[in-house]
Amino acid sequence: MKIEVLKENLKTNVNVIERVVGKNLSLPILSNVLMRTDESFLNLISTDLEIAIKLWVLVKVIKKGTVVVPAKFLSSFISSLPNNKITLESKEQNLYIECENIKTQIQGYNPEEFPIIPELKDAGWLEIDSKKLYNGLSQVVDIASPTQTRPEISGVYFSFLKNHIKMVATDSFRLGEKSIYLEEAIKKEYSFILPQKSAREVMGILENKEGLIKIYISSNQVLFESLFKEVKHPHIQITSRLIEGEYPNYQDIIPNKFKTHIILKRDEFLNQIKTASLFSGKVNEIKISTSKEKQEVEVFATNRDIGENKSSLPATVEGDSIEVSFNYKYIIDGILNIKSSEIIFDVSKEEGPCILRPVGDSSYTYVVMPIKSI
Amino acid sequence: MKIEVLKENLKTNVNVIERVVGKNLSLPILSNVLMRTDESFLNLISTDLEIAIKLWVLVKVIKKGTVVVPAKFLSSFISSLPNNKITLESKEQNLYIECENIKTQIQGYNPEEFPIIPELKDAGWLEIDSKKLYNGLSQVVDIASPTQTRPEISGVYFSFLKNHIKMVATDSFRLGEKSIYLEEAIKKEYSFILPQKSAREVMGILENKEGLIKIYISSNQVLFESLFKEVKHPHIQITSRLIEGEYPNYQDIIPNKFKTHIILKRDEFLNQIKTASLFSGKVNEIKISTSKEKQEVEVFATNRDIGENKSSLPATVEGDSIEVSFNYKYIIDGILNIKSSEIIFDVSKEEGPCILRPVGDSSYTYVVMPIKSI
Repeated sequence: MKIEVLKENLKTNVNVIERVVGKNLSLPILSNVLMRTDESFLNLISTDLEIAIKLWVLVKVIKKGTVVVPAKFLSSFISSLPNNKITLESKEQNLYIECENIKTQIQGYNPEEFPIIPELKDAGWLEIDSKKLYNGLSQVVDIASPTQTRPEISGVYFSFLKNHIKMVATDSFRLGEKSIYLEEAIKKEYSFILPQKSAREVMGILENKEGLIKIYISSNQVLFESLFKEVKHPHIQITSRLIEGEYPNYQDIIPNKFKTHIILKRDEFLNQIKTASLFSGKVNEIKISTSKEKQEVEVFATNRDIGENKSSLPATVEGDSIEVSFNYKYIIDGILNIKSSEIIFDVSKEEGPCILRPVGDSSYTYVVMPIKSI
Repeated sequence: MKIEVLKENLKTNVNVIERVVGKNLSLPILSNVLMRTDESFLNLISTDLEIAIKLWVLVKVIKKGTVVVPAKFLSSFISSLPNNKITLESKEQNLYIECENIKTQIQGYNPEEFPIIPELKDAGWLEIDSKKLYNGLSQVVDIASPTQTRPEISGVYFSFLKNHIKMVATDSFRLGEKSIYLEEAIKKEYSFILPQKSAREVMGILENKEGLIKIYISSNQVLFESLFKEVKHPHIQITSRLIEGEYPNYQDIIPNKFKTHIILKRDEFLNQIKTASLFSGKVNEIKISTSKEKQEVEVFATNRDIGENKSSLPATVEGDSIEVSFNYKYIIDGILNIKSSEIIFDVSKEEGPCILRPVGDSSYTYVVMPIKSI
């Protein structure tokens, strides 16, 4: 293999490819990147066996070939080079790099030891706007909780039905659901559970990108392929295994009747919860109460070792007066997933699930369980 | 005590005061800040028994008094408040804080348990420009090495002689010396060893400040007092204990005869060393060599597990050809302490100390020992 490429171009792409690379002591080959020429592209591949990233960089190919080198090391080294043209050449297993007055040899490994990334066969597919997918994932991904006992809730649940994609995540204490409307109806229904790590990798690659993403779905794998505006070729593919199992029938727990309906200013509510959180105890307990007469919400926390904090903020309050305790972390996460300037906060019943929603946007629902009083 | 103060003003000062506060399990009172009214100021004090910070904040004093509360907690709490007027009031030992619609009680401690900060008696003093002191300290402070076996080199050595203040630090592998010229000659000679941590605290407080610093020196303590332009009153004092012992007679190890004299471009040199460092082995070894004929410096590193790297950069080379090995970290530290666009690199003799200096500025000298070949 012999190619020429601009440093910045290679660096950007090696930074992407190294994302899934970790230390794998039992299979050290996985800490490498496979580089091979593919027509006028350099094809870079990395995998941790759960996720695989493949991407294509436009380069000047002088001689075809393949080389396998440590991914993180390559990334640090490329970053350290001057912004100029780089020549990469493989000799036996090693990679020789020249840039300006710098000559380097990096020890490589046998390309045949590198795992083969399985192709998706007979997969159905659909297209979605990259920004919508990114924003939707960002509102649910952190809620999923990696757990051994209930692996099915350790990922993001995708369901595709007619004109909607729904993305859901829960850790059994709270749940987020985001619905994305599709212009064109889907012909077939699909659903799958994407591991949280894969969802984060997909987000990492979509961030600040415009264009369409093509999703190919098979029974045990999913492939996200970029069709970004700035590059004509489909230059990135992420393949991920799927989580087996049945996602819980979550729709039953989303309440649809409410005892109290509150509308609050988002930033003010967030700040008061953060301030009160400093005074919360071991279970992160803060108390939220309302009185219909006063049209305000009171946030209270106390801790016998530290002191206590109480604040009131104006709100629109309809329905019964309430006093509910929450883990402040769950409330903060919910508020952070909502970007509207006002937030709907609905209480269903004593010790029942509560709901946070953006005002003026019914596509997002955050359900949170209160702390039960003893 | 009852005072009124603007949130931003209190926050800035509490952030300073919490710098020296750590967790001290045997003396928990040290994790607190003492707040007391002093005429129309609020005087804040914190100490870890090695360093003490005292500062004065202009506030509206409604009622005199003293209160002791956890410093880091107070700092987080004040930061969380809206940008507005805060009322602080002590009742018994506790502190009550009101800001807009937020009411808080913070548990306090008995002010009598708070250690008394010793006053400097019969101390000599001198004045120095705050920026010069900051910049000088920044060029040496990180070189000092906290060591149990040789406590005298675990700090920054200050010596005051006629028109100069010299600041020196070493870890026995390398040494930095900065000389600051004083317009007005000092009447008496002083010298002391300031603990590294205290030096860093002084820097933290001087950063981005303009004005004069007054240094009071006694036999076992030193006091840095700010006379900053923006506030008329001397609003900060840092008192530090001094390290006992005799500082090594370091001037003997600074070579004054050189076998090879090299002038290099700073940034280029730094980048090449950083790139080569990726290929260095366990002792961080990189090799620097010159040939007088070529007027260039070659940087080389090799590691049997990774590969090798070689780069050459143009330089002015006078004297014998050399080949010297260094711990790359020591060279990088030296270059980072020098801000000029060109660097002098002088080699005294085979395996003898080398020197890095800024071109056009004789006030700074960085001495570094090479790695001895086996």
